[in-house]
Amino acid sequence: MNTTGNTFRLTTFGESHGNAIGGIIDGCPPDLQVDYAFVASEMARRHVGGNATSRKEADKVEYLSGIYQGRTLGTPIALIINNNDTRSSDYDELASLLRPGHADYTTLQRYGIRDPRGGGRASGRETAVRVAAGAIAKMILNKKGISITATASCHTPAGNDSAGGTIECTIEGVPAGLGNPIFDKLNARLAAAMMSIPSAIGFEMGIGFKAAAMRGSEFRDHWYASDGHIGTMTNHCGGIQGGISNGMPITFRTAFHPVVTIPQPTECLAPDHTLATITPSGRHDRCHLPRTVVVVEAMAAITIVDFVV
Amino acid sequence: MNTTGNTFRLTTFGESHGNAIGGIIDGCPPDLQVDYAFVASEMARRHVGGNATSRKEADKVEYLSGIYQGRTLGTPIALIINNNDTRSSDYDELASLLRPGHADYTTLQRYGIRDPRGGGRASGRETAVRVAAGAIAKMILNKKGISITATASCHTPAGNDSAGGTIECTIEGVPAGLGNPIFDKLNARLAAAMMSIPSAIGFEMGIGFKAAAMRGSEFRDHWYASDGHIGTMTNHCGGIQGGISNGMPITFRTAFHPVVTIPQPTECLAPDHTLATITPSGRHDRCHLPRTVVVVEAMAAITIVDFVV
Amino acid sequence: MNTTGNTFRLTTFGESHGNAIGGIIDGCPPDLQVDYAFVASEMARRHVGGNATSRKEADKVEYLSGIYQGRTLGTPIALIINNNDTRSSDYDELASLLRPGHADYTTLQRYGIRDPRGGGRASGRETAVRVAAGAIAKMILNKKGISITATASCHTPAGNDSAGGTIECTIEGVPAGLGNPIFDKLNARLAAAMMSIPSAIGFEMGIGFKAAAMRGSEFRDHWYASDGHIGTMTNHCGGIQGGISNGMPITFRTAFHPVVTIPQPTECLAPDHTLATITPSGRHDRCHLPRTVVVVEAMAAITIVDFVV
Amino acid sequence: MNTTGNTFRLTTFGESHGNAIGGIIDGCPPDLQVDYAFVASEMARRHVGGNATSRKEADKVEYLSGIYQGRTLGTPIALIINNNDTRSSDYDELASLLRPGHADYTTLQRYGIRDPRGGGRASGRETAVRVAAGAIAKMILNKKGISITATASCHTPAGNDSAGGTIECTIEGVPAGLGNPIFDKLNARLAAAMMSIPSAIGFEMGIGFKAAAMRGSEFRDHWYASDGHIGTMTNHCGGIQGGISNGMPITFRTAFHPVVTIPQPTECLAPDHTLATITPSGRHDRCHLPRTVVVVEAMAAITIVDFVV
Repeated sequence: MNTTGNTFRLTTFGESHGNAIGGIIDGCPPDLQVDYAFVASEMARRHVGGNATSRKEADKVEYLSGIYQGRTLGTPIALIINNNDTRSSDYDELASLLRPGHADYTTLQRYGIRDPRGGGRASGRETAVRVAAGAIAKMILNKKGISITATASCHTPAGNDSAGGTIECTIEGVPAGLGNPIFDKLNARLAAAMMSIPSAIGFEMGIGFKAAAMRGSEFRDHWYASDGHIGTMTNHCGGIQGGISNGMPITFRTAFHPVVTIPQPTECLAPDHTLATITPSGRHDRCHLPRTVVVVEAMAAITIVDFVV
Repeated sequence: MNTTGNTFRLTTFGESHGNAIGGIIDGCPPDLQVDYAFVASEMARRHVGGNATSRKEADKVEYLSGIYQGRTLGTPIALIINNNDTRSSDYDELASLLRPGHADYTTLQRYGIRDPRGGGRASGRETAVRVAAGAIAKMILNKKGISITATASCHTPAGNDSAGGTIECTIEGVPAGLGNPIFDKLNARLAAAMMSIPSAIGFEMGIGFKAAAMRGSEFRDHWYASDGHIGTMTNHCGGIQGGISNGMPITFRTAFHPVVTIPQPTECLAPDHTLATITPSGRHDRCHLPRTVVVVEAMAAITIVDFVV
Repeated sequence: MNTTGNTFRLTTFGESHGNAIGGIIDGCPPDLQVDYAFVASEMARRHVGGNATSRKEADKVEYLSGIYQGRTLGTPIALIINNNDTRSSDYDELASLLRPGHADYTTLQRYGIRDPRGGGRASGRETAVRVAAGAIAKMILNKKGISITATASCHTPAGNDSAGGTIECTIEGVPAGLGNPIFDKLNARLAAAMMSIPSAIGFEMGIGFKAAAMRGSEFRDHWYASDGHIGTMTNHCGGIQGGISNGMPITFRTAFHPVVTIPQPTECLAPDHTLATITPSGRHDRCHLPRTVVVVEAMAAITIVDFVV
Repeated sequence: MNTTGNTFRLTTFGESHGNAIGGIIDGCPPDLQVDYAFVASEMARRHVGGNATSRKEADKVEYLSGIYQGRTLGTPIALIINNNDTRSSDYDELASLLRPGHADYTTLQRYGIRDPRGGGRASGRETAVRVAAGAIAKMILNKKGISITATASCHTPAGNDSAGGTIECTIEGVPAGLGNPIFDKLNARLAAAMMSIPSAIGFEMGIGFKAAAMRGSEFRDHWYASDGHIGTMTNHCGGIQGGISNGMPITFRTAFHPVVTIPQPTECLAPDHTLATITPSGRHDRCHLPRTVVVVEAMAAITIVDFVV
């Protein structure tokens, strides 16, 4: 389903070239002052370095409910972002072709029908709603002294090609004791949240894959305790033990593959199962990571806030 | 909470040294012939190379409900595994000490109380229930032509030390169209399932972190279509696009850190916030991956079956 | 939370005098032809006999997503209904007063803040969204041969007063085998659905409270079986046994108390815990049942469709 | 599914004549002293006036997990109750016959297979688990000053026949502000909880169906406010307004139909769709309400506690 979270629950809707995208936040605490300027600044971070495609969207967030005189009511907050610059005719050629590396084929297998315009529901455009909701989540976390910072490392794209990279994220101020043992571990939730971002392909907590090559004596984080403060001398585990936060900064890294829409000849699958070559035109996203940073932060915020409201 | 799944739902219970561990499977399809020998053989795989600790458990699975004359009823299947060889006195010394790298401290912060005997709920012993439930899940998948195979790569432990490694898993026979877009992506679910296994610290689909260094032109999996069969020439994405299976084998890799209980002096946190050194005795797990393989497969089976029942 | 259903999931949002009310349907099957005229006719049934208050709303339903070229995509359907005739100044007097019989006081106790305009979230206006979603649910049920009919019996209101009554509902065409044993019984779900309608105060299946005075020999519905058709000679149980439909028509009755806003002097609770008398003005709803009929049907449709998609 | 609750979650398992019945409570607060004698006394109340059938069960509750040194750990509490006196051969005759008024036919339609011994999963025996879990819920509520009392009114059964009746329940000490608006109303939850009890056929809050015949001026509960205490002069609504408690006692009534197993000739449906007459032997339950009282209280406790933990 299109919902994440248990207590702070976000449901999103919208196709890339439909009337609008948007969502409902159910479970936002009441009496929170909404900082509209902050929402707008977060939305702008999703356009760092220009739009991903040649499409221009203002991405103004409209609130339809759940807020009265600037303060949240505790009732569902519906938000919409209009799709203005859709120019769907750009996609006429693609209506029946299934691009490699996209969700075109799998969507059709899943539903038997699909909106061919710009990837429909599977478009990266949907992440704008996550950023808008993430901004609300950050406001709540901020009041509790919890802050989230992500930074991107891009590889270098070649001419007419695209590159991937990794995004590292640190969450500071999370008290010890957040999360659950067994299935609903805080790290399991963060992994799912990150892997739900388009083009995510790997996830690691703390020192991550490197831990596989360490000995137990090296890996385990030793205690220190001084002046009433308890912590660990290293943070190999990334701040979570047994699925529950230990009070150290929570750190994780997500790998993203390069975007697969590139201005090169591309063999698509046609309805008669032949291959048809097209060459996508227009400006394309050479490395999408700078603008994915705010999406990573948003999903981290949405994940953490679910445990604190 | 201690439940995973929506349609095939597993809830587990039990402390390492309590009376028993076990669980309830809710949503198992009716009229499935239960292969008890297969369950027993899966349970035995969790003891490859001897028990993890010096503890000896037969791990016989008893079914209390949901099965009549060897066939499932569609009603909840309760299963229990008795704890016999608990020798809790071994843990007297540890009752008030919090070990580094374990969930002792975080459990106490989360609940304010904990069962100190053998890690309580956070013990790896709980995975025995997952394996028992995974065996049922595999029976269902097997009838649908879906098979799961995992293999471990261990690093070499030093004397009196432990090593981690990675486990690679391949799921074959999954039809195209399984999974969901947006939050509940099949890859997001697999990531959460893997990260919920004790000592998991990293996860990657298909070619994984390597994809971060590839160009879009290299990464994207090109179509082939011949004789009515559709597939991709490479499988860098690991069989899932846009959160939905594409009919190719599903492949992923999980990194595990070494076990942190080693027979070396270990500084624990005492209630007065001083550090107390103990040296755990007895046989310990030098590399736990050979016996974690079946846990990986079980969690993969439980995850996939939830989309097909 | 503001969501109902598991597989056909409706989340609603909106305050009575906010910008808009609306909702998201998640889980609508793909490739369903949307009958917009039917939606409009169902919305009109909620205005039988004039609006409930003097407020005039066109209640035009706008779809923002999930539909492409008139057919559902299987993705979330967002729908909004604008609030036009809000005249919130009518409520200035009431901003700080808590009316008897309303949710004013309880909302304030629950959230610590409330939108005083027209009942805010607790307004009957929210049911317009349920009717819009119910219309979609009915389209799905209709294709499966399931139909829902409700009829109201109003008591006679006195001058300047209001009356309640009962609404009887029959669902025909439900096959045997729908529902669940134990907690998630089909009758338990219908009871919850009906009690979630504003002013509902009682619910009974089949012969209902009268069954309490019957003997077992009278109450039990005897089998008949002829020409391959199985049924019962009476239908005292209302078509559900052990929480699961038995193939007979499903029948139930819901009691509604009279609306509590009447043009008579009304003692409200003021912030200083004194009582302040106001007399609501304008047209009021003397018996709301004729226009609640479509809400009952909508909630029945939403409940049943959740078991069949 | 076989689970109720969100934060205090009960999953039950077990067939009437299987090895055991039982359940898992997930979400019980940690550090609660378990009063085993109270559990036993609640279990005994389910046998008031002798067992429902000639079967004798001690109904001793065994705890397998979640409790250490008499205090809850916050982890899942698994409880089992063995089935001892099953004498399944009594049911040989019935193995292929579907009794009128029971869930035999609907279970078979739902699952395609059923355990014919004593009603299998649909047996009233399952309510023993609810009572055991309800006892834990009551301990939690008791610490918060919330108490639950139910009383039964039976009709008079004739010779060799059975009678139904109503059970009235009052919950005192619930603070104002508990519950939710819209779908998840506290009264909707109570309705579902009551209708989930075997043989429940009607439910009403407060004055209930009588409200349908009242005028708005009579029905609405007027405020009183004195000495800092706020309440209403009448309690027609039964303590819940807009789905949220108002601080007055919560009152509701549930109607139960008579048990349908009576020692009279009974026409059952045979596999070949003919009718076969049997006459059930042994002691039967003439009015089951005295022992259903504790089940009503248990379900009320389980419902309320879900909003307070």
